[in-house]
Amino acid sequence: MQEIRKGGREARRALRAAPLAANQRPVWPGMEGGLYRPLADPDVRRVHAAALDVLAEIGMADAPSSGVELLTSAGAELQTNGRITFSRALIEDMIAGAGRYFVLYGQEPRHDLEPWGRRVYFGTAGAAVYMVDARTGEYRDSTTRDQYDIARTVDALEHVHFYQRSIVCRDLADPFEMDFNTCYASVAGTAKHVGTSWGDPAHMPASLEMLHLIAGGEAKWRARPFVSQSNCFVVPPLRFAQDSCRCLEVAVRAGMPVFLVSAGQAGATSPAAIAGSLVQEIAECLAGLFYVNAVKKGAPAIFGPFCFVSDLRTGAMSGGSPEQALLSAAAAQVAQFYELTCGTPSGMTDSKMPDVQAGYEKAYNHALVGNAGANLCYESAGMMASLLGFSLEQLIIDNDIIGATQRTIRGIEVTDGALSVETIRATCLGGPNHFLGSEQTLARMQRDYLYPAVGDRTSPKEWVEQGRPTALDKAAAKLKAILASHYPDHIPPHINQAIRDRFPVRLPREAMRGA
Amino acid sequence: MQEIRKGGREARRALRAAPLAANQRPVWPGMEGGLYRPLADPDVRRVHAAALDVLAEIGMADAPSSGVELLTSAGAELQTNGRITFSRALIEDMIAGAGRYFVLYGQEPRHDLEPWGRRVYFGTAGAAVYMVDARTGEYRDSTTRDQYDIARTVDALEHVHFYQRSIVCRDLADPFEMDFNTCYASVAGTAKHVGTSWGDPAHMPASLEMLHLIAGGEAKWRARPFVSQSNCFVVPPLRFAQDSCRCLEVAVRAGMPVFLVSAGQAGATSPAAIAGSLVQEIAECLAGLFYVNAVKKGAPAIFGPFCFVSDLRTGAMSGGSPEQALLSAAAAQVAQFYELTCGTPSGMTDSKMPDVQAGYEKAYNHALVGNAGANLCYESAGMMASLLGFSLEQLIIDNDIIGATQRTIRGIEVTDGALSVETIRATCLGGPNHFLGSEQTLARMQRDYLYPAVGDRTSPKEWVEQGRPTALDKAAAKLKAILASHYPDHIPPHINQAIRDRFPVRLPREAMRGA
Repeated sequence: MQEIRKGGREARRALRAAPLAANQRPVWPGMEGGLYRPLADPDVRRVHAAALDVLAEIGMADAPSSGVELLTSAGAELQTNGRITFSRALIEDMIAGAGRYFVLYGQEPRHDLEPWGRRVYFGTAGAAVYMVDARTGEYRDSTTRDQYDIARTVDALEHVHFYQRSIVCRDLADPFEMDFNTCYASVAGTAKHVGTSWGDPAHMPASLEMLHLIAGGEAKWRARPFVSQSNCFVVPPLRFAQDSCRCLEVAVRAGMPVFLVSAGQAGATSPAAIAGSLVQEIAECLAGLFYVNAVKKGAPAIFGPFCFVSDLRTGAMSGGSPEQALLSAAAAQVAQFYELTCGTPSGMTDSKMPDVQAGYEKAYNHALVGNAGANLCYESAGMMASLLGFSLEQLIIDNDIIGATQRTIRGIEVTDGALSVETIRATCLGGPNHFLGSEQTLARMQRDYLYPAVGDRTSPKEWVEQGRPTALDKAAAKLKAILASHYPDHIPPHINQAIRDRFPVRLPREAMRGA
Repeated sequence: MQEIRKGGREARRALRAAPLAANQRPVWPGMEGGLYRPLADPDVRRVHAAALDVLAEIGMADAPSSGVELLTSAGAELQTNGRITFSRALIEDMIAGAGRYFVLYGQEPRHDLEPWGRRVYFGTAGAAVYMVDARTGEYRDSTTRDQYDIARTVDALEHVHFYQRSIVCRDLADPFEMDFNTCYASVAGTAKHVGTSWGDPAHMPASLEMLHLIAGGEAKWRARPFVSQSNCFVVPPLRFAQDSCRCLEVAVRAGMPVFLVSAGQAGATSPAAIAGSLVQEIAECLAGLFYVNAVKKGAPAIFGPFCFVSDLRTGAMSGGSPEQALLSAAAAQVAQFYELTCGTPSGMTDSKMPDVQAGYEKAYNHALVGNAGANLCYESAGMMASLLGFSLEQLIIDNDIIGATQRTIRGIEVTDGALSVETIRATCLGGPNHFLGSEQTLARMQRDYLYPAVGDRTSPKEWVEQGRPTALDKAAAKLKAILASHYPDHIPPHINQAIRDRFPVRLPREAMRGA
């Protein structure tokens, strides 16, 4: 048997020497999910009908004056109590005319995303206020340099498909400088699609000017907008956030996709009943989508029901809870019913460190939300402590977790060849009675099986011989290698210089080797 | 806001003081899964058809002489190459008449399991040869005392529903003593349903005699058999394991349910193609079920396709792989098609320690296999290093992972009340604009939300103040408390004494306080 195994192993080793073409990889960005469906189809329609009831009968409070004008001009009604209501037909018509099937562009076309149907992509989000030391559990304030380092690490990771600014640049006291530099450090750190936010519409022109510079002019920016605006347009329950709404107006007019985040927390700012929390966040997102379409019909907007969970013993958020998995998966299903691009959180944890709890909370969320077919899984990598902290080592580990999740999303190929009756026959009737060196095994070992980058698969004996390396040890080593060597060069030096000449860039030049 | 939160918190605290009745718990044993379906229905039928092809055209080798007699008497054919083949109609008829809807009994009725349909239970399995030190990663040989300690820990854990012997009693050199004492330490350690195995039919009478003593006589044992026989009746691909087959015959005649485990390893002892591995293991399990029914028609047997995964770079098993999740979930789906009770592995890991990798590998497997509706998830708690090691601390942590998985299996209640339109209305129109103290929140906080036993949900600030406790720290403390205090007393002392008088019990009496 040892000899037989050895023969098979040598053949497999020879095969591995040949690199695999991208279209033969075991997983790829944008695979189709949808085989996990937490809601029955009639229940999806009930959630929709209840959301329409909420918008027609309760409506939204606190619209800014510009919003009142836009929304009522589009057919919504300002009630005497100051709330804006939306008739059921108005919302149905808006959904029918809303933007869909829009690409989220990268600065480089190889990173373009097509997040519709049941295709699934994974990316980061934010916004943590601490960086976590993965070994000691020390929490420190996050900085602009961290933003850049996270972005360029994401740039180097196969399974993290977009970068939404993950941390708050707490070294920058001035709100304008913070918004500008958050955008700068993100787009300088990765050529993948970027999401970021602005706290005040007055902060946006400088960033837009920078994005035009990078794109090669406004027309080229508008043709391939590679940054979307993450916009918390609502203060749940059912109140517009005025500054955010005015930022939304600027983004839509500037051709920037808007990510409409309604982040109610079940039991605190949305109902404790899972279905009710979903209803409220869907209603709020529909109101936000109505707002976007009132500014410009068909403008690209990501439908973002972020139905967060409270630990009702304390009122604190619990991003790693199983209820979170249900809420995000169900939110994806409702967005599929609307045929809208959905962004929803997956892969959060309540743990403060990259430990066993971080692993299991992240994984059951990813497995279910990913397999539900959520188009854009936000918060999917690096986040700790229910979004308060960020760990670069965990980011590397999450790349493995996402890869594994993608492998489950890819599912099972059922063809005559895969069913293998002839392979079994050849093996058992006069064959070697094992499959180690069979043609099928050699053909499928790299196309059908995903091998982890940092997960350890050695036997206890080998593992002890190697000094007991853990996935965290391997992640720390991989991170070190990336940070030491991966400096994206997608922005030409003269453009970078023009940006630095014109705007208050606070990322030290020496942080960007080659910049 | 601080005041408002405080008011809500006090109401919630008062409510928590009242204990919750069992039928109002957020999760319970045997919840219905099935909302994740990795195979389309036509593909399930193709897997079935291919398995029938395999049995009709390739068949099984190496049946013991008693098996040749039994199988051919029941209609199977002995071919000139020594293999036994089964016609398609013969297998279809056997499936139709096979035992289903049988209870797996506990020694106490509160632990009875009803594992059919899409109901899901979680338990341990085996058989590890090492115990793992969760802090140092040290591996040492497992012993009879470990068996007992694991069993009584399982006895104390809410979400681990049955105990299959998890480790090999390596302190016992004599095979008979090992088999007997494995059974003894298991049934003495827990009143939950037990699974164990015997290596030789001659080892079984002593154990059966003991089980009759515990039950209060053979008739009472046969009325409520609380031990099932885990039986690896096959050496994949498609060869009967002769000693195991003869053990199976004894078990069936003794009224003991048989768990038919076919544990091919994809790419090594079963095809590398996922669908093909499934086909072979289904075919083998059908052959095993045919064997059981040839001994006694309708005898209780658990259909156990254990489609393991190889890391094809080394040939080693990878229990934590994403391909494993697909295989086990698909196996459950095929068993549902047959309406047979399915046992399949979930919750294994390749990690050697209770670390982040152990967490994520276990969790994505549980999330998908559990939600696929596998009736009996084996290997679901405590196992490390792809079944080579066992960690008691991980067992405690797995109890939390399984609880969370069960919460996702429970799914989302969609009723008018849960949709919450009136709750939202009352909150937003003249209400407090939050849900912290609402009637719905108070009613649902303990029935709809599951709180982890060892998972940590504190904020970074509180966590630092508490000395940075991890889930592993809390698990170690919980384990210590259980081991110090939980000594099951379900076997009366005089019965225990009778067993010790009659058989070579090797578990030291002092290991069993009160025994």
